[in-house]
Amino acid sequence: MGEEVEVVENKQVLLKKYIEGVPTETDMEVKLGNTIELRAPKGSGCFLVKNLYLSCDPYMRSRMRDFHGSYIPPFVIGRRIEGFGLARVVDSDDPDFKPGDIISAITGWEEYSLLRKSDALQLRKVELDHEIPISYHLGLLGMPGFTAYAGFYEICSPKKGENVFVSAASGAVGQLVGQLAKLHGCFVVGSAGSKQKVDLLKNRLGFDEAFNYKEEADLDAALKRFFPEGIDIYFDNVGGSMLDAVLLNMRVRGRIALCGMVSLQSLSNPQGVHNLFNAISKRIRIEGFLQSDYLHLYPQFLEHVKGYYKEGKIVYIEDMSEGLETAPSALAGLFSGRNIGKQVVRVATD
Amino acid sequence: MGEEVEVVENKQVLLKKYIEGVPTETDMEVKLGNTIELRAPKGSGCFLVKNLYLSCDPYMRSRMRDFHGSYIPPFVIGRRIEGFGLARVVDSDDPDFKPGDIISAITGWEEYSLLRKSDALQLRKVELDHEIPISYHLGLLGMPGFTAYAGFYEICSPKKGENVFVSAASGAVGQLVGQLAKLHGCFVVGSAGSKQKVDLLKNRLGFDEAFNYKEEADLDAALKRFFPEGIDIYFDNVGGSMLDAVLLNMRVRGRIALCGMVSLQSLSNPQGVHNLFNAISKRIRIEGFLQSDYLHLYPQFLEHVKGYYKEGKIVYIEDMSEGLETAPSALAGLFSGRNIGKQVVRVATD
Repeated sequence: MGEEVEVVENKQVLLKKYIEGVPTETDMEVKLGNTIELRAPKGSGCFLVKNLYLSCDPYMRSRMRDFHGSYIPPFVIGRRIEGFGLARVVDSDDPDFKPGDIISAITGWEEYSLLRKSDALQLRKVELDHEIPISYHLGLLGMPGFTAYAGFYEICSPKKGENVFVSAASGAVGQLVGQLAKLHGCFVVGSAGSKQKVDLLKNRLGFDEAFNYKEEADLDAALKRFFPEGIDIYFDNVGGSMLDAVLLNMRVRGRIALCGMVSLQSLSNPQGVHNLFNAISKRIRIEGFLQSDYLHLYPQFLEHVKGYYKEGKIVYIEDMSEGLETAPSALAGLFSGRNIGKQVVRVATD
Repeated sequence: MGEEVEVVENKQVLLKKYIEGVPTETDMEVKLGNTIELRAPKGSGCFLVKNLYLSCDPYMRSRMRDFHGSYIPPFVIGRRIEGFGLARVVDSDDPDFKPGDIISAITGWEEYSLLRKSDALQLRKVELDHEIPISYHLGLLGMPGFTAYAGFYEICSPKKGENVFVSAASGAVGQLVGQLAKLHGCFVVGSAGSKQKVDLLKNRLGFDEAFNYKEEADLDAALKRFFPEGIDIYFDNVGGSMLDAVLLNMRVRGRIALCGMVSLQSLSNPQGVHNLFNAISKRIRIEGFLQSDYLHLYPQFLEHVKGYYKEGKIVYIEDMSEGLETAPSALAGLFSGRNIGKQVVRVATD
């Protein structure tokens, strides 16, 4: 008696140690030899998924620190890390999820994961569309795209004709912020860290102007060149010295959305921002946000952004890394700006 | 022909040089020997006032710098500085202002000033009330009081029961913020720089708790002691290391009103704020403001705060310095915290 259950290898990416500065490849380990039963145990309410694509996102480094005071707990040393992923249901003890369904959620960095509706964060069924690459559900139509949408419309209070500056502008979030701002009738400038990225911003992503911050000895002067009349909206993905330079160039009643601080070399000993005083004299609003506070807007976002994409009004650039074993290096690469566009890892194709 | 015009001495406080750090007494000079005709020339549209009380306010140091990028231009070297004052009209070529009228406005730091409606900033006629000391029109009912009112209600979005922290809490603005917050049903803690000020906060101004920041080696630990569940609203009058410590102790969706940064030793080379990253994970809104953007609320403010004062629901502490020649020292004293309560200079009594 008892049905036969297939047991397969389940390669994983483990956290080796907590980090102090930025993540490096050696903070993680690709672990072979684990096995997993390809079923969701009866009565468990779980479903077993095969992970297809994993998303590398800068916020993940907060979970690689030994710090429990944040909005999301740290990873556990010696266990597989996790992040947003796109997966196919293989077996299910949950009537809402059937074998063959494609889901997105926070899943394990491993080949197969056992998930449960009540635990899996931001779990959604994904409706595939032959006009849209499936992996875009981790970028353009996933957390980063939604971050751009919620941050731009809900935090930046944009008005037509305003001057918008986006840092890390070719990244997963920045590239959509810039395109939404253009569609909104704004003047949009982006910064990035290489000539190739600057070319993408100007020639493919439709930014009005773009510059390589690494080639600017004086960020204040660079911003004054592109914004002689000042900045109304700054969508900040980097923090640090760029934020400081922007504070010198904001217009009265400008808005700064704090989305990420990928430039910081350390979250436990971060560099200082010196020009906050300008926020008083110029009446600037600076607001941090998390996309997860705005999930009620997700259906509207999906409809709008899918529409824009299908009409050819926006494009999206992704950087695909092949194989789970490349995931640690892909994640670490975010912090040196090695990726060009949204960094995704392909774990399997079906 | 020609009427005889009285000519009197007009003592003035001049700016001697632009400052780099905080103002000191020797950056200014009390100049004797100037004279002024006690009349408003016909056709000038001016009115001549006798200055009764002058207000010493921390914002004035921005005008003592050689910096033209702010919301208000710098003072001119060798000319009298200016600031909020309360004055009596002596002669007038403006039908709206009659001899004997009491006005408040930005006036000269001198015994007599020739003002014009179209130039004088925040000019108002003052309605005296025997229940309220006249000098309170520079503090409780003037710019600092209105700053407290606009900042607390318009920027902090207070809710009953929230945890409110106020720095420089016994100062011109802070003392009213704390009392308004108490009237709003909040839990209110203030910081100040001496035992005497802490006693005032607890025993006269009705704060729930107060502490001397100079006696706290670890501001983060001090805030955790008073706010074990975190801070919802921080009304920031000081900037710098206190703001940094507060950022570690804010609750999710907290609000920080940036009102002043009196702790900064230099505006041209300000110290860094390191903990802005917390504004993302905790979704904090940080907003700078100037009372002058909210003047449409001034009549409502005056009615509310006059009412509270007459009902004995709020009190106000001022620090009176006697004589125009004491004004430079009184202004400089703000930056070492020498004043206890709102710093005013009495130039004349009638």
